Amino acid sequence: MYDAAIIGAGPAGLSAALNLKLHNKNIIWFGNPALSDKVQKSEKIANYPGFGMVGGQTLNEAFRKQIQEQGLELTDRMVTSIMASRQGFMLLADNEIFEAKTVLFATGSVSAKGLPNEQALLGHGVSYCATCDGFLYAGKSIAVYCAAKRYEHEVEYLAGIAEQVHLYCTYQDCGIELPNVIRLQSPIKAVCGEDRVSGILLADGTEIPVDGAFFLRNAVAPATLLKNLELEGPHIRVNRQAETNVPGCFAAGDCTGRPYQIAKAVGEGNVAAHSIVAYLSELDKK
Amino acid sequence: MYDAAIIGAGPAGLSAALNLKLHNKNIIWFGNPALSDKVQKSEKIANYPGFGMVGGQTLNEAFRKQIQEQGLELTDRMVTSIMASRQGFMLLADNEIFEAKTVLFATGSVSAKGLPNEQALLGHGVSYCATCDGFLYAGKSIAVYCAAKRYEHEVEYLAGIAEQVHLYCTYQDCGIELPNVIRLQSPIKAVCGEDRVSGILLADGTEIPVDGAFFLRNAVAPATLLKNLELEGPHIRVNRQAETNVPGCFAAGDCTGRPYQIAKAVGEGNVAAHSIVAYLSELDKK
Repeated sequence: MYDAAIIGAGPAGLSAALNLKLHNKNIIWFGNPALSDKVQKSEKIANYPGFGMVGGQTLNEAFRKQIQEQGLELTDRMVTSIMASRQGFMLLADNEIFEAKTVLFATGSVSAKGLPNEQALLGHGVSYCATCDGFLYAGKSIAVYCAAKRYEHEVEYLAGIAEQVHLYCTYQDCGIELPNVIRLQSPIKAVCGEDRVSGILLADGTEIPVDGAFFLRNAVAPATLLKNLELEGPHIRVNRQAETNVPGCFAAGDCTGRPYQIAKAVGEGNVAAHSIVAYLSELDKK
Repeated sequence: MYDAAIIGAGPAGLSAALNLKLHNKNIIWFGNPALSDKVQKSEKIANYPGFGMVGGQTLNEAFRKQIQEQGLELTDRMVTSIMASRQGFMLLADNEIFEAKTVLFATGSVSAKGLPNEQALLGHGVSYCATCDGFLYAGKSIAVYCAAKRYEHEVEYLAGIAEQVHLYCTYQDCGIELPNVIRLQSPIKAVCGEDRVSGILLADGTEIPVDGAFFLRNAVAPATLLKNLELEGPHIRVNRQAETNVPGCFAAGDCTGRPYQIAKAVGEGNVAAHSIVAYLSELDKK
């Protein structure tokens, strides 16, 4: 069992990972080895102390170097579900189970809530994993929300199974051109259906009937991942110790609220790591 | 009137200053241009994201370069008193008054409380300013608490006035050797006296009778500076927005509590700056 599972490879996750490593904790760190897309795409950062007017690429490069030097490792899997028990947490990532005594959400500014109805219909037509659930939709119509270029092969995989794919990409240069893929121009606003997915609602008001909806993004909305996690608007509610309402579960960085800033994220990641160390030491005494 | 007065030149103060500057706020930043002594003396820092295994001197050098590049300026004066009013704050620094709409404490890990009795006897034998109050002690006996080499000329100045000086230095290589200066081996633990200073109590239990006590340190304890500031143990109580209980007064970094870490400090400095910007914008609407 791991001491801690960190979800997210942005500045908050990095800051926590560095500190947990210094405390000799055994961690599993889920995230994209290319690190934060948001940092990468920042043209100029003027307010991260120590780096005067730095480009996001340069800063991410410094982060990657530090990860390597400290012997840290990123696990490039998407966590799709978490269960809390007395013993700790079970995390499901690409159909494999990982166990950890604590969990840290460092999932970025993506809404912690997910889209309306997304959480309710998870497992009933809503899926986060093309490889896991794609086969269910042979000959059917699905919607796919794709949040990064690196998920395009999963879209192609789904298009190879489903009859028709309604695709919404959150980024500019989507490279998918397939006869059965229809590109949506308006963002997906909600999932429709009572007991299972019946369609998707777009921001422009149109409803498109589909049998399933895949959300391919860097991170699953935390409140969807872990039941009973308390939110505050679109953010995870934490106290000054980075503790959430779920014992053993912590959060840091953009997912806890504004300001969405690198300095704030590394600060909270640091605090969260220290709180995790304290929590683990209490666990040991029990 | 300044938009904000920042007290402290460590990572928290720097992070706030960078952000307030980006928001075009008119600030006065009190602190030592050599920046944080604590950072400077850190042999190796392994957990500040972006800098892999960096020495404190190198990091401070990067901070100083950034300060220069961003056109920020440090005012090397010690703030010795703050008054809050409806209009904002009046800060007394080396006998000059500065006005600011908001105040940020980024005063480091020095206890926010001061020594027992220090606050009660301020102005009644306790002083923070050799130049201001030294003349009162001609021919008398005083105690001096000296927290940094750069205050040694003030100790010499006091020794030129007082009959006898009981000196406690918090650092190793104190360079003062004068016939009327007695070096204390045990730290000063408390100030004695009811209506005015009658002596000092050392950690080893001895009480030394003196007529006055000078505390020469980088920062005056915040609760001594500003009346009614709420503490939590030795720290300033803040919420997640870095707000103290006094409207318009914020705090960030080590002075708000553990972990005493650079990453945590820059995070809180960033949050505080954003809260100050929001507060100023509300002020403008009034």
